[in-house]
Amino acid sequence: MTAPEPTGPRILEVRTKILKKNDELAREMRRGFERAGVLVVNMVSSPGTGKTSFLRETLARLVAQGAPVAAVVGDLETDNDARRLAESGAPVRQIMTHGLCHLEADMVQRHLDGWDIPALHYLFIENVGNLVCPTSWDLGESVRLALLSVTEGEDKPLKYPGLFNTADVAAITKIDLATACEFDRATALANIEAVRPGMRVFETSAKTGAGLDAWLAYLAERRAALRPA
Amino acid sequence: MTAPEPTGPRILEVRTKILKKNDELAREMRRGFERAGVLVVNMVSSPGTGKTSFLRETLARLVAQGAPVAAVVGDLETDNDARRLAESGAPVRQIMTHGLCHLEADMVQRHLDGWDIPALHYLFIENVGNLVCPTSWDLGESVRLALLSVTEGEDKPLKYPGLFNTADVAAITKIDLATACEFDRATALANIEAVRPGMRVFETSAKTGAGLDAWLAYLAERRAALRPA
Repeated sequence: MTAPEPTGPRILEVRTKILKKNDELAREMRRGFERAGVLVVNMVSSPGTGKTSFLRETLARLVAQGAPVAAVVGDLETDNDARRLAESGAPVRQIMTHGLCHLEADMVQRHLDGWDIPALHYLFIENVGNLVCPTSWDLGESVRLALLSVTEGEDKPLKYPGLFNTADVAAITKIDLATACEFDRATALANIEAVRPGMRVFETSAKTGAGLDAWLAYLAERRAALRPA
Repeated sequence: MTAPEPTGPRILEVRTKILKKNDELAREMRRGFERAGVLVVNMVSSPGTGKTSFLRETLARLVAQGAPVAAVVGDLETDNDARRLAESGAPVRQIMTHGLCHLEADMVQRHLDGWDIPALHYLFIENVGNLVCPTSWDLGESVRLALLSVTEGEDKPLKYPGLFNTADVAAITKIDLATACEFDRATALANIEAVRPGMRVFETSAKTGAGLDAWLAYLAERRAALRPA
């Protein structure tokens, strides 16, 4: 849920305080992660965009490279995604929100307990599937990734500018289905460019592996930038 | 956004009051709609499920039958969907929420102003694309329709039980893409059945028209039940 909300000053005041507390914790978490050289990626998309498949393939490639990596994944109910992601060989924990539509920084922090975080190179946070509410909640990430599948329609960036405005990078998923969906690539890219000029976009398929090498190279660059040699 | 939320008793109290006010208005709206013989359908799904295409085809068929019908459609930004829906020939209004993740009863009420509502047979409300937050907000509908596309994964009903629990009926969309997506129909139906035993499910394609006759027959039945002869 994002501000502003037409429900009067009282709820806005309460929400502002909660968001402020979240932001303070998230800033502190980010400082800790970046100082330790851990690149944290917060993945946001609609339900069904294919975040979990994208992340599973990302984790499997990083594990194969020998990079220390872990993930937490948010869902309202079920630990289906954590089980799917664990197939990659990386340690994964499920955050069940029991009805809440987004993750908050303290939920992430609690679920890292007992892990040797400074030993990691990468930590991925798969947010609850929702194009609106996660936008307002900083989770201490260094990279916010907005994902959009070819099945969703090319105008999502225009309809949900909040997400694309706050994202650092975007991925188009399921490009193996582009033809079957009559996906209009040029329009989708132009819409992303209109909302967030210059944002890097990876065109990917978890099924064929398309675009994933470029995505991994981007992650390595971003991580290297955390600790200039 | 749905309760319960782990942010303390104060925000819960505020939210409870707002929801109560919404529910009272929605109940009053529903009484008015039903007394006038207007079947109101609230359509809820993830962004990108194809609500707008499904609704455009529904409206076009009702217009062709000569049934008086209208629609309101919620989005954070843009009136793209209202323009797409108007191609059906039905009157359509866009509700722009400017960041809010769901529709509320008073937003719907305000956007009906000036329309001759009792003259309608059907009124459709296309909610903001979101599987979580719209669940808690009664809009005065008689039928809540949960939509799920074959591209989204079969476990959505298990991950978002709130929506499927509060829905009266479900539609699976984009079945023309089922093979390309390796959609597991039996599992999807079993998952819906597990969350909401006995719920009717329409398997549809806005592209081919599959399943839409059965859906229209269901609407006519439900409308007839509002005013027994």
